[in-house]
Amino acid sequence: MDASSETFEARLTATAREVEAVLDTLLSSSVLNGEIVRPERLRSAMHYASLNGGKRLRPFLVIEAASLLGGDRDAALRVGAALECVHCYSLVHDDLPAMDDDDLRRGKPTVHIAYDEATAILTGDSLLTYAFDIIAAPETKLPDAAKVVLTLALARAAGIGGMAGGQALDLAAEKQAPDEQGIVTLQAMKTGALIRFACEAGAIIAGASPEDRTRLRQFGERIGLAFQLADDILDLTSDAATMGKATGKDAGRSKGTLVALHGMAWAEAKLAEHVREAEALLSPYAGRGTVLTEAARFIAGRKS
Amino acid sequence: MDASSETFEARLTATAREVEAVLDTLLSSSVLNGEIVRPERLRSAMHYASLNGGKRLRPFLVIEAASLLGGDRDAALRVGAALECVHCYSLVHDDLPAMDDDDLRRGKPTVHIAYDEATAILTGDSLLTYAFDIIAAPETKLPDAAKVVLTLALARAAGIGGMAGGQALDLAAEKQAPDEQGIVTLQAMKTGALIRFACEAGAIIAGASPEDRTRLRQFGERIGLAFQLADDILDLTSDAATMGKATGKDAGRSKGTLVALHGMAWAEAKLAEHVREAEALLSPYAGRGTVLTEAARFIAGRKS
Repeated sequence: MDASSETFEARLTATAREVEAVLDTLLSSSVLNGEIVRPERLRSAMHYASLNGGKRLRPFLVIEAASLLGGDRDAALRVGAALECVHCYSLVHDDLPAMDDDDLRRGKPTVHIAYDEATAILTGDSLLTYAFDIIAAPETKLPDAAKVVLTLALARAAGIGGMAGGQALDLAAEKQAPDEQGIVTLQAMKTGALIRFACEAGAIIAGASPEDRTRLRQFGERIGLAFQLADDILDLTSDAATMGKATGKDAGRSKGTLVALHGMAWAEAKLAEHVREAEALLSPYAGRGTVLTEAARFIAGRKS
Repeated sequence: MDASSETFEARLTATAREVEAVLDTLLSSSVLNGEIVRPERLRSAMHYASLNGGKRLRPFLVIEAASLLGGDRDAALRVGAALECVHCYSLVHDDLPAMDDDDLRRGKPTVHIAYDEATAILTGDSLLTYAFDIIAAPETKLPDAAKVVLTLALARAAGIGGMAGGQALDLAAEKQAPDEQGIVTLQAMKTGALIRFACEAGAIIAGASPEDRTRLRQFGERIGLAFQLADDILDLTSDAATMGKATGKDAGRSKGTLVALHGMAWAEAKLAEHVREAEALLSPYAGRGTVLTEAARFIAGRKS
């Protein structure tokens, strides 16, 4: 690990702690504004599901993309927390018996194991709903126009045309292996859409020009591709202890990945290409793009 | 049935057809704006779940409340369709084996029976997400400020402090019967919150004064109470054929209702009181409030 990546990982960790503090505050009260009653078991499950030790990569991207373009940090933290609620909802629902049927997530019991299946369904539903609450709430200090654009972009990234649709394709892929284009579409929707949104959201928060917004969106697309490819490589090479979940599962379920299709050497060359393209997209920002550039490298080189 | 209620029911039916036409348009395309790909099985399940022959009472309330205060009808139709997506998502998830485990909904197979359980989970998730898409989309011609207020109010009505939280309380009530205050809170959240939102949304769409908005919100609260009480009465008196779903279930599961607690005579008197209070709230609008007044009476007197 060189000095630069050490600094980057410290920054990533520090930001994760900040995001977790925001999430903890948002999900700790049983009564909000003196009138909104939150049933305790469900509130506790939402807290459990979203404060479970992830890297908080998506909020980090929101915050660093906003920072690059001069956006407000507190607003970016709240939008990042909203995005993390969406990510965590998807993990809770994906883990359900009717979906991937996973008992462990990051080495801890999944929500339907720690609580029960009905509570897990409602936990996912409530986290998804809460994401839109957080963005629209007066405490998120952004112009209404930005909130509307963020709401629309998040709904599209998370819905049938994005993450949820990608999960549907993933379930279908267990029955019939998709071709290469099918794999690319599935991954762009299931994993790529939220990562792309994270980067684009930073630009929206900053009130960036359409050119900057497009550039950040394209950067998000590239690192989304890198993220998925790194995930597929990890899935074939790492062991369950490192990942904290069952591995080799995708292969076992005969779902195609690009690594399975083209081999490891191709995958590693492609991964480097995605990172180069991501970096090139940030060249107009010169030195200010360093953190996001390091994020791209980190995503490609991560070990878990 | 007198002439006035006949006219009212014709109006309700005509509006339901309009709402269904909007939902059908929103959920029929497999590609949106030339770029948003919708996996076919999931899109089809969303269409099935939301075009299943309900009365579309919530959209009707949005549209009539907006009309009372001079709001745009097309915007109200789209917000009504969004609200119906939230209502339908809740039915799909409530019907799941881990929740109420119902095979039939309005006499037709529920989504997890007609499709499969994983698809039903994703269908609910995607309908909920799509509701926020519809409100924020440029096709909904409303000021950004109104869209943000609608987004926040809908998220609060649907989330842990509203419908989803009410469903969590309902599940808990199967294990331990709530006291009277517990029943009131449960019902206000599970059923009342979306009905209240429907009426308040009409005021928001119309850009109404805070006084008018509060008045419509209070009207929505009253008819929400009436709706739930009528439901509890129906549940004890009607047969499965009329309701199109299993009845007597709430009693069988030993969940308390106010009818079980206080008896039928009390319930009918209370129902009439809710309707009178709802009507009184509309008195400042004189004749213009007639349709909503009839809606209150219809809700209290409905047979299914």
